[in-house]
Amino acid sequence: MQQFFNTQTATLRFIFKWTLLAIPLALLTGSLVALFLWSLDEVTKVRYQHTWLLYLLPLGGILIYFLYKKLGKNSEKGNNLILDEIHTPGGGIPKRMAPLVLATTLITHLFGGSAGREGTAVQMGGSVAAWLGRVFRLEQKDVSIMLMCGIAAGFGAVFGTPITGAIFALEVLIIGTLTFHAMIPCLVASFLADVVCAAWGIHHTKYSISSHDFQPIASYLHVDVWLLLKVIVAGACFGLTSRLFAVLTYQIKLQSNKLIPIPWLIPAIGGCIVIGFCFALGTTDYTGLGVSGPHENSVNIVNAFHAGGADTWSWLWKLLFTAITLGMGFKGGEVTPLFFMGAALGNTLAILFGTPVDLMAGLGFIAVFAGATNTPLACTIMGVELFGGEYLVYYALACFNAYIFSGKMGIYSSQRSTSGKIL
Amino acid sequence: MQQFFNTQTATLRFIFKWTLLAIPLALLTGSLVALFLWSLDEVTKVRYQHTWLLYLLPLGGILIYFLYKKLGKNSEKGNNLILDEIHTPGGGIPKRMAPLVLATTLITHLFGGSAGREGTAVQMGGSVAAWLGRVFRLEQKDVSIMLMCGIAAGFGAVFGTPITGAIFALEVLIIGTLTFHAMIPCLVASFLADVVCAAWGIHHTKYSISSHDFQPIASYLHVDVWLLLKVIVAGACFGLTSRLFAVLTYQIKLQSNKLIPIPWLIPAIGGCIVIGFCFALGTTDYTGLGVSGPHENSVNIVNAFHAGGADTWSWLWKLLFTAITLGMGFKGGEVTPLFFMGAALGNTLAILFGTPVDLMAGLGFIAVFAGATNTPLACTIMGVELFGGEYLVYYALACFNAYIFSGKMGIYSSQRSTSGKIL
Repeated sequence: MQQFFNTQTATLRFIFKWTLLAIPLALLTGSLVALFLWSLDEVTKVRYQHTWLLYLLPLGGILIYFLYKKLGKNSEKGNNLILDEIHTPGGGIPKRMAPLVLATTLITHLFGGSAGREGTAVQMGGSVAAWLGRVFRLEQKDVSIMLMCGIAAGFGAVFGTPITGAIFALEVLIIGTLTFHAMIPCLVASFLADVVCAAWGIHHTKYSISSHDFQPIASYLHVDVWLLLKVIVAGACFGLTSRLFAVLTYQIKLQSNKLIPIPWLIPAIGGCIVIGFCFALGTTDYTGLGVSGPHENSVNIVNAFHAGGADTWSWLWKLLFTAITLGMGFKGGEVTPLFFMGAALGNTLAILFGTPVDLMAGLGFIAVFAGATNTPLACTIMGVELFGGEYLVYYALACFNAYIFSGKMGIYSSQRSTSGKIL
Repeated sequence: MQQFFNTQTATLRFIFKWTLLAIPLALLTGSLVALFLWSLDEVTKVRYQHTWLLYLLPLGGILIYFLYKKLGKNSEKGNNLILDEIHTPGGGIPKRMAPLVLATTLITHLFGGSAGREGTAVQMGGSVAAWLGRVFRLEQKDVSIMLMCGIAAGFGAVFGTPITGAIFALEVLIIGTLTFHAMIPCLVASFLADVVCAAWGIHHTKYSISSHDFQPIASYLHVDVWLLLKVIVAGACFGLTSRLFAVLTYQIKLQSNKLIPIPWLIPAIGGCIVIGFCFALGTTDYTGLGVSGPHENSVNIVNAFHAGGADTWSWLWKLLFTAITLGMGFKGGEVTPLFFMGAALGNTLAILFGTPVDLMAGLGFIAVFAGATNTPLACTIMGVELFGGEYLVYYALACFNAYIFSGKMGIYSSQRSTSGKIL
């Protein structure tokens, strides 16, 4: 009986402690993410109005380089620094990470670099969490949980998907393994941060997959077997796309550091290449975030959910634009561009396979991300949070298949791995 | 490039191999589960028609005892034997486990013992998987994956929830940790077994939680904070119920083995106690499976989703009936009775808290099970598969809260544990 009360009191204390710690974390992170999403929106509007801003992209890159050189300390390592600190607490995460990544992501987007949001949100969350950890003098094991809460809060708030945020924070640390001890703290932090962000009036883009009446090949089957096989093949394609993106970004970073001896020239040249690509393709659809576009018919994530909303190779162009932007020193996340690649590839495959476009775009949206970050479970859950639960079995098949086909590397070099993805 | 092809070929080979292995497993397990569910239904109908069968419950218990004593070998260890074999392959799982557990579960249900289905389905799946492993001469690491596939197939087919089945198989092995290497094989096996079972014409009970219009306390909040807090408190209650059930079942088994020197007397006395309880309460609502009942107003899982469908202490009565039935030697699973306890307790709490009855019943349904088996993630997913994705955040909060409040024990003694549920 005594033991019963002891464990229950410990559990209650655990919940109270982490709820109390999650409140300031969520207030700060949620507000920062709201500020970030609002300014990202403003910056993107300005870019749509002043298309000449694209020509300044190389200068923006140089500015980012010097901002990090002068002020960055170790914060340039970004998401990887947060993962490292959770695995082996050491140098700490500087407060300046938050404003720096916020400012440089906005610079990237103002001038039309192709980048995302989650890296920025996660780094702001991590930076706030590390600072709060110092303020409250948390012990080391609690600092790890706090940093995971920071990831969860940033991720949950930036996409409006709190459960995905929490599971992402647990899943991203080690490839193929998940532990639950920090689930409740992460869930509370992610949930509150999302509420705070929404309370600032931020709305997230709504995606939807409509209900389709599938024809089972036989009356006694309650699934469409052909669709299922096509989803499995598509899952492999999504995983190979993740792999291509991760390898290409890595190689671009490696080679440009080798071949271009003056470091600030790297982002300048990267900016020039992006401009060149825009001219060659005759469109700026692959610059910026890509959730929506300046005009009705531009290729973007929202349109990729409809037939004709993306071209056959749109996914590849977005992949190249993003690999160059992020591989050559600009800032921002990878996830929204991964959504773009996935949705656009899903669009292409849907036409090829004769399957519903919105379903395939939605599967690509979550599965390319699953493969690149090695977080198939969080992405399956994201499917439910964004598109509803009806297609759960397809989400799971696409995400886990993408995960095993995406190779070991992924976009986070500080992710650990205990064993292979398959035995 | 060579390496690229090597890993992709290995992944393809992995998928083909496990799809091929999953086909016979799913055909056999899905068919056995279909047979089981059909005969369970028949047996329950017979019991409704011939209420005097309850008086033979003690004799049924004695029959079960001697069946296992004469024919059982090591198969009486049930689910725990399968978990043990996955952790440390050794004695093997005998083929006879499948027919034995099928027959004894039917005996339990024919005479009105309070038990479930998942244990039976999982043991049939595990037994088939072990046998196929020997037929195909699988190496040891593949036998482990095959057994996990057997669990997934049995679980997925018996409840019609394939994704839950796959995640359950990964999650049940070690408390608080999950690895993904067997996810694709488990997903394929679970999915196919569900298809096979459905192809035999088996229908699963449909549950639903209707859409509720919640009033956020302030216009800028997109959640109902009060409801959320009530769900968190309810989650703790669900977890404590799981704990009570696990401890009580364990103690009943321990004490009856200590106090009753003649082993076959244990189930006989257990049967008499159940009969006594029925008389004392004046109802047989707490015997059998409890999904539906002999008359419209009986207390059962389906009715617990409506106001007035369960009494204040229904959850406790079902808990006692089941702890006695399973603790004193009858066979069957624990999960359906756990659903019952959870849904009934949810019903009671909904009236106490003034929250929607169907939502709280649904949360109890999954959360008491999550706490007792230490599989909060599978149960969260089960919420999506059974009730839809709308209330995902409540599923996750209820299940993970139940999980941390349910103590370390759980109903599977062979579950391993690497660290505490909270740090």
